[in-house]
Amino acid sequence: MYTGERFIAIYHVSAKDKEEAQVRAWDICLEQTIEFPEDLVWKEEIREHVFGRIASLEEVDFGRFQAVVEFSVEVAGRELTQLLNVLFGNISIKPGIRLMKIQLPDSLSSLYRGPRFGCEGLREKLNVPEGPLLSTAVKPMGLTAEELAELAYRFALGGMDMIKDDHGLSDQEFCPFEERISRCAEAVRRANQETGRNCLYMPNITSPFHEFAARCKFAKDAGVGGFVISPGLSGLDAMRWVADNDELNLPILSHPAMQGSLTVHNSAGMSHGVLYGQINRLAGADACIFPNYGGRFAFMPQECRDIVDATQVPMGAIKPIFPVPAGGMKLQRVPELLEFYGNHVILLIGGDLHRHGPDLSENCKKFARLVGR
Amino acid sequence: MYTGERFIAIYHVSAKDKEEAQVRAWDICLEQTIEFPEDLVWKEEIREHVFGRIASLEEVDFGRFQAVVEFSVEVAGRELTQLLNVLFGNISIKPGIRLMKIQLPDSLSSLYRGPRFGCEGLREKLNVPEGPLLSTAVKPMGLTAEELAELAYRFALGGMDMIKDDHGLSDQEFCPFEERISRCAEAVRRANQETGRNCLYMPNITSPFHEFAARCKFAKDAGVGGFVISPGLSGLDAMRWVADNDELNLPILSHPAMQGSLTVHNSAGMSHGVLYGQINRLAGADACIFPNYGGRFAFMPQECRDIVDATQVPMGAIKPIFPVPAGGMKLQRVPELLEFYGNHVILLIGGDLHRHGPDLSENCKKFARLVGR
Repeated sequence: MYTGERFIAIYHVSAKDKEEAQVRAWDICLEQTIEFPEDLVWKEEIREHVFGRIASLEEVDFGRFQAVVEFSVEVAGRELTQLLNVLFGNISIKPGIRLMKIQLPDSLSSLYRGPRFGCEGLREKLNVPEGPLLSTAVKPMGLTAEELAELAYRFALGGMDMIKDDHGLSDQEFCPFEERISRCAEAVRRANQETGRNCLYMPNITSPFHEFAARCKFAKDAGVGGFVISPGLSGLDAMRWVADNDELNLPILSHPAMQGSLTVHNSAGMSHGVLYGQINRLAGADACIFPNYGGRFAFMPQECRDIVDATQVPMGAIKPIFPVPAGGMKLQRVPELLEFYGNHVILLIGGDLHRHGPDLSENCKKFARLVGR
Repeated sequence: MYTGERFIAIYHVSAKDKEEAQVRAWDICLEQTIEFPEDLVWKEEIREHVFGRIASLEEVDFGRFQAVVEFSVEVAGRELTQLLNVLFGNISIKPGIRLMKIQLPDSLSSLYRGPRFGCEGLREKLNVPEGPLLSTAVKPMGLTAEELAELAYRFALGGMDMIKDDHGLSDQEFCPFEERISRCAEAVRRANQETGRNCLYMPNITSPFHEFAARCKFAKDAGVGGFVISPGLSGLDAMRWVADNDELNLPILSHPAMQGSLTVHNSAGMSHGVLYGQINRLAGADACIFPNYGGRFAFMPQECRDIVDATQVPMGAIKPIFPVPAGGMKLQRVPELLEFYGNHVILLIGGDLHRHGPDLSENCKKFARLVGR
């Protein structure tokens, strides 16, 4: 029944001293598994195999301890929802516990396909074997489907690799889902015929539970090049389902909407790397959007670095994915971004592409020249 | 196209002075809608109808401002995922913004059924017209389906109104979903035949996206009395789908796993009331589990009160629901809980029911006597 194999969750725990840290770490071991008074557990098997286990505990900063906790693979079952539950379900409610990193043995990680394409697959699809990839978004909300399609056309003509829906475009009356997807997909296809490139239009398919599969299917049939999903809204496992789906067979760009509370306070939630990198990756994102430092949001360079590292860290057969720094990026920052991220990145510039003259295709070409194309 | 109707989101914003608070509140108006440089918006209609609007802004505490923001109902579309996105999608990533409360006009709230049963419907189903309702959980993880069913049987014989799965029971090899559900449903049915009561067995159906509907269906066919769902894991809209489903037609108990990061820091995320009360309620929970003050978690009495208030606050035709304080409650605290919560509550006591002698049914009867049954 129990193989003895364990997966590892590394937490940072706030405590006044090591003794208190030990108590809090042990609490994690029980809270995430049995949720039951330890002394009342009468089955030895449960103590041995179901309880989490503290592998190590050390102070890493004043009042901050690193607890390496091992859980039996069996408690996580064969499903992402339960794996997430063991990693951070109940303890999300407790202050002063932050999930920093996960390490899954092959027996567990092999239950997950992860990203279908990953970095290599996406480059192949785009026919851009090296250098940074370029993307932008159709926006703002309130434009009609026709107006957004016109933007998509100009962006694609200008040499973008990926054109995504703004994540707030869902199925509003002023821009219905089906009309937007049909028009934008057609516009990008038309541009691709002119350029000979394979720019991908990636609509936002974050949607209600009962419409999610149908929207994916509609978009696929309309000829889109991939999907934007906000797993904080749709659930991480809905994204995993898309990645696993052989009929959809398209790349996924994950968007951080509603996931921010997990990272926003340094002493709770999850590290930027484990959430935006490891967990999004396990859940099938081929590329992960996050707020770059120095934009509209408050991420620090070190937090962005943490994400980059997590997109690449070995995770069994789970492919590495692209980091997508975004959130108010400007063309003038491209050299700095390249210095920070290197060539292994998708640059996403939205609003600022509208600020460099009326010819959007020409602005895209400026963007492309900045990365040496 | 735009009706002029707006819904209201009340935020607390951290700022050093009113001027900064004004800038931050205006940022919410744009970040949650257009995500685009304001000066580049050329369509007047977007300024008028898509931009959020600050209805009022006042300092409520030192460095803490309350911003009442109004959004056009049209930006939220007809779907919970997008409504949540407008309320808190991108700004979840920004520190110092907390969603405190929502007010939806009938034109928006009427798109949502909310809880199918609510307080009255649940009391009717249980045939307990007044007084607190009593519930417990089958646990700990690691018991077999047969062992859990035996617990369920004894709890039901002892007079519990609702018996839930521990939320960590999913579909593990040591306790497969179908076997657990079949055995526990049968055990509670058998006990009900003996007692003449209608105790509800509520299994945990939180599960992967592609299995979610099938597990609900299996459980329904097995004769369960309701469902436990952790919307933080499955997505809030999956729960909404269950509540809306005429064939399932069963009450829902929501569990806070993985939602904790939203409330854990007072200056970010969401208030306890808006999350555990209003949003869970809008998403179809008939009763909402949350950590009671003074248990294993760190909620304060005022935060629990905030939840209670939100389960009852008028929300158009959306029914009021039960608060379910839990998390390490003990029998000895029942009088205090009744004083705090009154009769309008579901008391959930898990592990402690095992601590008062070997006869679990007898322990349940002690629990029942404490509420005057």
